[in-house]
Amino acid sequence: MHLNKTQTNDSPTAVTVIGLGSMGTALAQAFLAAGHPTTVWNRSVAKAAPLVAQGAVQARTVADAISASPLVIACLTTYDATLQVLEPATAMLKGRTLITLNTGTPAGARGVADWAARHGIRFLDGAVKNRPDAVGKPDTLLYYSGDKAVFDEYEATLKVLGGDTVFLGTEPDLAALYELAVGGTLLPALLGFFQGAALVGKRGRSASTLVPYTIKWLQMICAALPRLAQEIDTGDYSQPASSLGLFYEGIPYDHEIGAEGNIDVTWHEPMHDLLRRAVAEGHREHSISALIEMLRKPAPAA
Amino acid sequence: MHLNKTQTNDSPTAVTVIGLGSMGTALAQAFLAAGHPTTVWNRSVAKAAPLVAQGAVQARTVADAISASPLVIACLTTYDATLQVLEPATAMLKGRTLITLNTGTPAGARGVADWAARHGIRFLDGAVKNRPDAVGKPDTLLYYSGDKAVFDEYEATLKVLGGDTVFLGTEPDLAALYELAVGGTLLPALLGFFQGAALVGKRGRSASTLVPYTIKWLQMICAALPRLAQEIDTGDYSQPASSLGLFYEGIPYDHEIGAEGNIDVTWHEPMHDLLRRAVAEGHREHSISALIEMLRKPAPAA
Repeated sequence: MHLNKTQTNDSPTAVTVIGLGSMGTALAQAFLAAGHPTTVWNRSVAKAAPLVAQGAVQARTVADAISASPLVIACLTTYDATLQVLEPATAMLKGRTLITLNTGTPAGARGVADWAARHGIRFLDGAVKNRPDAVGKPDTLLYYSGDKAVFDEYEATLKVLGGDTVFLGTEPDLAALYELAVGGTLLPALLGFFQGAALVGKRGRSASTLVPYTIKWLQMICAALPRLAQEIDTGDYSQPASSLGLFYEGIPYDHEIGAEGNIDVTWHEPMHDLLRRAVAEGHREHSISALIEMLRKPAPAA
Repeated sequence: MHLNKTQTNDSPTAVTVIGLGSMGTALAQAFLAAGHPTTVWNRSVAKAAPLVAQGAVQARTVADAISASPLVIACLTTYDATLQVLEPATAMLKGRTLITLNTGTPAGARGVADWAARHGIRFLDGAVKNRPDAVGKPDTLLYYSGDKAVFDEYEATLKVLGGDTVFLGTEPDLAALYELAVGGTLLPALLGFFQGAALVGKRGRSASTLVPYTIKWLQMICAALPRLAQEIDTGDYSQPASSLGLFYEGIPYDHEIGAEGNIDVTWHEPMHDLLRRAVAEGHREHSISALIEMLRKPAPAA
């Protein structure tokens, strides 16, 4: 296929990045690499130096930084920190677009959305579902929620940050909500791996020997998710690929990990309690996905 | 490259499969599909019928089943169950090869290994790191430990069960040990997903909407494992890609999941305690992999 070189290409949008932690720095670098005029601001001035060397303009004040671009990306530690930094420059943001890419709660995202609406600031919230070194790669996922017109207008620009760029919906807290929903898997999965590493370590085997098997295992879990999700969505747990009873019968194996490796496995206890409660409520022959019914109830008094 | 068709191909080894649960059935089917003369035995006789229809020979007794093949695969519920079923036919097993592919503890595997050694039975223990429907696929992982000569002799036959066939070492309990070490990730990871599904469900969003993001997230965790394993193997936690402090500061987000979705998140509490203890012991600026040091200590008195 032949593409006509004279096709119109808008020149890259000017972008301002506020907050130059490791993620903010990665965002600014991606914009610079894609040829976007990029203005940066950070409270501690020295953080900007490497970006200036790569062609960024360092603004002296937040207001100066905002005035430089129609699109302002804020990557501060929380939504509260974002409001604290931006509020003195509220007037300058009016009519411009603010996209927040910090970590935070859905309530925090709603707070910024309300503030933005009150001051005539176009607002989109997003989350980078990866580490800073993945920013700018074609497979890197970022999701957004809020003003759909903003997303449509800047989608091509946002794809500079990661090729897998998704709009979740117009409720401005959805990105933060999915961030919580997806992120809750991380610490438990890592602890499972560390525990396994401690176990094989007691036998003089390195944690590295566990990596390929754990990756395969997590891939198998990935492959099981669509079916488990469907069970949850239909509420039909009656055709299990893996029954809750199988996990319940597996409880002694977790204790065996402790005994075999002299490892503290007490972090499994509340998970075992969930299994026991589920079996007591008749879910033994149901899919393991029926455990969600236990999570949907308040915890019983200890 | 041209391969000479006259190259020698031994005819497929006769195999006996004892125990026809869903996994045992899948194993027998894979052997049948690969052209191995396959004899089967199960306590409840009816389970063998579909395999007989596919060409298996159903043995009337365990001893008959064993006498049919040099290679006996036992896939019963536990090592104890395996010994109970096999013991009456011990004499028939002498000089033959027994490979166990059940779930079980390292201690159980050691017990079968001792019993096999006492009775002149060649023994290899293994584990299928996947679900029955993955048996026979080129990417399916099975690992084995015990008699290396047995593994070498039957490696090609064992690859019928899954293309990713690994020998872990000559200690006969290593496969069971790795099984525990790898498997400990499953319930925590699934609970994290169910919790996320409960959270987005409160907003009328299906669990299925969470699947692609969770898969990407687990893939990111996979990508992080080699570095985390290296930190554990060197004991150097001082150059974190993700600091333990970052997880510690994330504790309120788990509570937010509970508040935002009216979800029972108490199963996180002992994980939070591990983070708090690690911070108290000076690991805040260390990699999250330093959490393994907490698991290696006995749990503090409640």
